[in-house]
Amino acid sequence: MSQIERIGVSLETELLCAFDALIAGRGYPSRSEAIRDLIRQEISDEELANPKAEAVAAVFLVYTHHSTKLMAMLTDLQHSHLLQTISSMHIHLDEHNCLEVIVLRGQVGEINKTAENLISLKGVKLGRINLLATDAT
Amino acid sequence: MSQIERIGVSLETELLCAFDALIAGRGYPSRSEAIRDLIRQEISDEELANPKAEAVAAVFLVYTHHSTKLMAMLTDLQHSHLLQTISSMHIHLDEHNCLEVIVLRGQVGEINKTAENLISLKGVKLGRINLLATDAT
Amino acid sequence: MSQIERIGVSLETELLCAFDALIAGRGYPSRSEAIRDLIRQEISDEELANPKAEAVAAVFLVYTHHSTKLMAMLTDLQHSHLLQTISSMHIHLDEHNCLEVIVLRGQVGEINKTAENLISLKGVKLGRINLLATDAT
Amino acid sequence: MSQIERIGVSLETELLCAFDALIAGRGYPSRSEAIRDLIRQEISDEELANPKAEAVAAVFLVYTHHSTKLMAMLTDLQHSHLLQTISSMHIHLDEHNCLEVIVLRGQVGEINKTAENLISLKGVKLGRINLLATDAT
Repeated sequence: MSQIERIGVSLETELLCAFDALIAGRGYPSRSEAIRDLIRQEISDEELANPKAEAVAAVFLVYTHHSTKLMAMLTDLQHSHLLQTISSMHIHLDEHNCLEVIVLRGQVGEINKTAENLISLKGVKLGRINLLATDAT
Repeated sequence: MSQIERIGVSLETELLCAFDALIAGRGYPSRSEAIRDLIRQEISDEELANPKAEAVAAVFLVYTHHSTKLMAMLTDLQHSHLLQTISSMHIHLDEHNCLEVIVLRGQVGEINKTAENLISLKGVKLGRINLLATDAT
Repeated sequence: MSQIERIGVSLETELLCAFDALIAGRGYPSRSEAIRDLIRQEISDEELANPKAEAVAAVFLVYTHHSTKLMAMLTDLQHSHLLQTISSMHIHLDEHNCLEVIVLRGQVGEINKTAENLISLKGVKLGRINLLATDAT
Repeated sequence: MSQIERIGVSLETELLCAFDALIAGRGYPSRSEAIRDLIRQEISDEELANPKAEAVAAVFLVYTHHSTKLMAMLTDLQHSHLLQTISSMHIHLDEHNCLEVIVLRGQVGEINKTAENLISLKGVKLGRINLLATDAT
């Protein structure tokens, strides 16, 4: 386990009250926990601006059953040298649509390129990508 | 299968060239496919501004192994009346960290509240949420 | 002037080092100043999710000279009962394009609606809106 | 004036209906105008991912009257060789706070760096930056 340090932060009474209300609403057990999360998020966002940063990503695709190209491309991803496909999950949404969540690991730039290629496939209707910089954890 | 309509769109030559370059880079098979994706994304974003809209979401959490509260809360989620937990996936990132991807279904407002409660737990280091409006598909 | 309080925050040594590097790169004079900014930003973002919250916004439009409708609509905005137009700034970008920055005050929902109506005008090529919740300041 | 081309787009009847409802709500005069805006926005977003791209930006700062360093830094910006300060606007929000909107031109990377330095100043409480890629217009 890593070592813990304690720092002091000065802030206006009104700002502290507003912050306490915000974190109570979200269920935070302490101010320290909430501030650590804000700091980690900011560091992660900063790192993700660098296309060479290492990241883990979840690509989230809604597509029709009939998208055979997506299936072929997902299989290719298993053999990619640039990205590591950690896992994927297939969910039946309704009679027309499926959801595929693919967890990838690699450089930010490569992940974004792969995600764009997946989203552009015929039959893929909506796509989003969530990146987290793994060095920030 | 739904019926297909054909509409005409007029645009400046320079804009069309820039668009063709963009979609070629992303691997789109046709302009129609790319424009359909832009339209679906815009409709989905518009719907997500309504806290009562039905959506499917992937909540993406990085946490330490020791977060027993997260495990308890994930179990509670299975029995939630407000949200439907469709699926979840657990991934070992390194000796300290795990990634959990939880796919939820329900109203945008409820999903966001649940995600905030998960992210605020002690031991959860980073969290992101991806929402897609299911009526837009 | 408001009163200042001092709170203690505990965090891992590695996280503190990464934070110190981030804020040094951005030129922050102290950790307290950086943490106050993170907190204010989070409170502002939370408030902006409420369409009834009071906000100040800068609407940022790129348009062609020939957009007479935009001119008429900007004039109408001066007389709006829902929004208060605080100020606007007109900038010549090149021989074809102008930039208009309009600062508005009012409820988040009304501001977004007005901004969408401005962006949808013929001759307006690109538009963005920046909102800040004024209660968070 | 640039030349206009006309392209055909095929899409599902339901998607077209949802799109027509969206653009009617925003006040678009035609589908072509709405689709051109979606395309321009996508191209602008793509270009902004490149730190060397030319852009115009509005930096939006809320600060206390007492921030003399901000005043000094804004003056320095007038003499910057890296960025061109096109214009700035100063607005009195209430007895404690001012809003400054600064329009800058230059490379995306330089603009972001300058904006971060402005936001990190003591006395600057909230800051946002809006970038638009000028080649996309």
